[in-house]
Amino acid sequence: MDITEIITLEEIELENPIFIEALPGIGHVGKLAADHIIDEFEATKFAEIYSPTFPPQVLVKEEGIVSNMINELYCLKDVGEDNLDLIILVGNTQSLTPEGQYIMCKDILDYVKKFNISRIFTLGGMATGQPVEEYKVLGAATHEEDVELLKEADIEIRSNDGGIVGASGLFLGLAVRQGIHGSCLMGETPGYFIDAESAEAILNKLSHLLNFEINVDKLEERAEETRQMIAKAQQMEQDLINKANAGNADDLRYIG
Amino acid sequence: MDITEIITLEEIELENPIFIEALPGIGHVGKLAADHIIDEFEATKFAEIYSPTFPPQVLVKEEGIVSNMINELYCLKDVGEDNLDLIILVGNTQSLTPEGQYIMCKDILDYVKKFNISRIFTLGGMATGQPVEEYKVLGAATHEEDVELLKEADIEIRSNDGGIVGASGLFLGLAVRQGIHGSCLMGETPGYFIDAESAEAILNKLSHLLNFEINVDKLEERAEETRQMIAKAQQMEQDLINKANAGNADDLRYIG
Amino acid sequence: MDITEIITLEEIELENPIFIEALPGIGHVGKLAADHIIDEFEATKFAEIYSPTFPPQVLVKEEGIVSNMINELYCLKDVGEDNLDLIILVGNTQSLTPEGQYIMCKDILDYVKKFNISRIFTLGGMATGQPVEEYKVLGAATHEEDVELLKEADIEIRSNDGGIVGASGLFLGLAVRQGIHGSCLMGETPGYFIDAESAEAILNKLSHLLNFEINVDKLEERAEETRQMIAKAQQMEQDLINKANAGNADDLRYIG
Amino acid sequence: MDITEIITLEEIELENPIFIEALPGIGHVGKLAADHIIDEFEATKFAEIYSPTFPPQVLVKEEGIVSNMINELYCLKDVGEDNLDLIILVGNTQSLTPEGQYIMCKDILDYVKKFNISRIFTLGGMATGQPVEEYKVLGAATHEEDVELLKEADIEIRSNDGGIVGASGLFLGLAVRQGIHGSCLMGETPGYFIDAESAEAILNKLSHLLNFEINVDKLEERAEETRQMIAKAQQMEQDLINKANAGNADDLRYIG
Repeated sequence: MDITEIITLEEIELENPIFIEALPGIGHVGKLAADHIIDEFEATKFAEIYSPTFPPQVLVKEEGIVSNMINELYCLKDVGEDNLDLIILVGNTQSLTPEGQYIMCKDILDYVKKFNISRIFTLGGMATGQPVEEYKVLGAATHEEDVELLKEADIEIRSNDGGIVGASGLFLGLAVRQGIHGSCLMGETPGYFIDAESAEAILNKLSHLLNFEINVDKLEERAEETRQMIAKAQQMEQDLINKANAGNADDLRYIG
Repeated sequence: MDITEIITLEEIELENPIFIEALPGIGHVGKLAADHIIDEFEATKFAEIYSPTFPPQVLVKEEGIVSNMINELYCLKDVGEDNLDLIILVGNTQSLTPEGQYIMCKDILDYVKKFNISRIFTLGGMATGQPVEEYKVLGAATHEEDVELLKEADIEIRSNDGGIVGASGLFLGLAVRQGIHGSCLMGETPGYFIDAESAEAILNKLSHLLNFEINVDKLEERAEETRQMIAKAQQMEQDLINKANAGNADDLRYIG
Repeated sequence: MDITEIITLEEIELENPIFIEALPGIGHVGKLAADHIIDEFEATKFAEIYSPTFPPQVLVKEEGIVSNMINELYCLKDVGEDNLDLIILVGNTQSLTPEGQYIMCKDILDYVKKFNISRIFTLGGMATGQPVEEYKVLGAATHEEDVELLKEADIEIRSNDGGIVGASGLFLGLAVRQGIHGSCLMGETPGYFIDAESAEAILNKLSHLLNFEINVDKLEERAEETRQMIAKAQQMEQDLINKANAGNADDLRYIG
Repeated sequence: MDITEIITLEEIELENPIFIEALPGIGHVGKLAADHIIDEFEATKFAEIYSPTFPPQVLVKEEGIVSNMINELYCLKDVGEDNLDLIILVGNTQSLTPEGQYIMCKDILDYVKKFNISRIFTLGGMATGQPVEEYKVLGAATHEEDVELLKEADIEIRSNDGGIVGASGLFLGLAVRQGIHGSCLMGETPGYFIDAESAEAILNKLSHLLNFEINVDKLEERAEETRQMIAKAQQMEQDLINKANAGNADDLRYIG
């Protein structure tokens, strides 16, 4: 049952769409940027993706309603001046296991390729570990001409400097093998908070590359919501840790 | 062989049974509550479940007899004033692996769905990490109307506060996807001992929700048995650790 | 390819053989005992077992010849006064993964069941963590009548005291499910060296239970060989650690 | 999808080729040696190998171009005085998981066996943990006559001294089972840097054993390039760690 379940919610028709991956990662940078595009342009969710390689849990959302760990595909038609169609992959998790990562990316790419995708962009954060003064965006790509396009957008090109881990890397790796052009945009971010400014930097570059305009007024608001949700979960966790430490540590051996 | 083995012991007929999950977890709260229902109402075991994702061991029970790691399905007919049928999932373990968790929950739900289950309740503990004065029960659910029912039973509703990990979460997640209504009842418990009081709190809420009465006199007795069994195993383990530390630590490198 | 490869080397005929499991474990107790039986009675190797769940390595044996990680099946005919046939499972490893453990034990039991095995004995060590004065043998079994037989042999019966982990446990668990009678003999051993005395204690009980005599003169010699082999490997490892610590620890970051 | 993908780039014909494995390991010794042979003799890449058991990432190479985690097969015809044909396995990674290691080695050996390989050499490093004065090469083999050949080449034979972990071991293990002759050459190396001298020592022994001459002038240059690439990745990583440590460690709990 190592099988990615992709459930089509709506049959859609798209013209050579661009595929954008923005699953959660460092600083939630890619996810924040993509969620913002989805909201601002009122994108249509057309597929849901489940996998037994996701974390084995549900989330408790507002008012006590549970929701699954999930990836989702949204689409947009006629975006920006070039009337581009987009497919956007977002979600609340990535696969837990290395093999799961490979399998999911392959299965999702196979699925979206049916729409004749023309290019791939993967969005992520690049942790600096310290406060960021100027929010740079770094890039890498599958082909030289894509690197040139990134340079023209004033995106700093990485070189010989390690790896891109997870879905943002693997979709490009699969693209290389299948002759699809792809680029990765990584927003510099301290890495230790939900970073709306880094997401905005990525959105600026993406809107430049794809020739569309987007209002980022609500981006900070969205980041704030995400922060509060995460802070609340962390506060609960921290309370638990503090109380446990205050108690008889020996007793912890008795946890069933 | 990632296959859940479900062995039917007895063919049963049930009318829109409610499915209750209570596999071992924090404070053994859910398991204690469900084992008590099974004993008090003399439920019938009708299926045994095995999986290669369980811990690779057997347990030594009374008088030197070994027993397998196992999950079990019991049923009850005409419980309480509403003559409800129940299917109860208990056991001595959950799956060791994330993927195993997903697979087992899916396979078990597929199996019990043949009986046209009407609702799902999952029972668990919520660790507080400190002594609990008033044993609250917290809840979450798949649909708003289920949350309302929990509120009417004075169950505190969780909101935006992280996840429900393991079988208690995954059964609700599968329920959401299949349009089945489900709720999770989590008894607050320090988390570091077998907690009969928290189990009693859950039993009170469940008997209220399902409109049945249950005598909880023997619940503490059951908790005490469980505590003694676990304490004995832990004493043996601790003796071993103490003796090992007292010995020549360097020699430990020679363990084969 | 999660598949146990069992390669039959020789077609054999046995009469209701007893199946003895003695894969490596604590103190090499079971393995030493079984290897000794195989040598003394000149048992016939009739099957080799390989699995991708074994550690991914080969061993360098005498004179630079490599050998695979392997499990092996030996057989003996007409042993002792009761003319018993035996199948003995030995090897240089157990499966690395929990699931691998379940799969291998199931596959091996399926294989040996073709010979109409009458009973199962699993042999192992029980770590005390300190020097052992009197080498006791502890036991557990699948059925009450087997426990009685162990008691008659002055084997101390375990009760409610945790689990038997690995092949020695899982073969009994499978036996329970298939109505086969099985017992586990665990020799007390400090746990931190290759323990010929504990192996001898197990051999004494086994020869009593199965009514055969065995000369244990060479048992200590065998243990000494095993010790030297392991000590040599550990010396190399320790030299490496010492040298590494003496060097520039920072440089260790450069290991490729 | 636990499946090794082997993509044939070019149909080749070889005469009883020798199969040489040199995937990355300790000190990059084997890989450096094999990459050097491939460059000096201008070997032909004829197959690419991918696996979902590789690390789930891509590498960023020169000028921002990404490349996949990959294993590759090269071939050479009429090498040296004996006009030997060679198949050489190199790559930037080994499988992450034990099972993956077994599966990949089996699948790759099945593939190269179609060319009627006559012998196997596996190349690796043997970490000393301290500076090496005289670069010795150690060996082990599948058969006594291969050990003799290693001895004649002044290769020190290992004996009863532990295991050979990973592809260098597993290919020999598979060779043993299939009656193929194989040897492992392990260059002593401190283990904590990319070691061109150890690679040269291996190349000397291999060229002696296979009766070919090879210019090693560029070997140090190649090692230097590898060192710089790795050092750059490590510098980035170290910067990140330093900055993170300088920052508010508490904030690290907020990483999404």
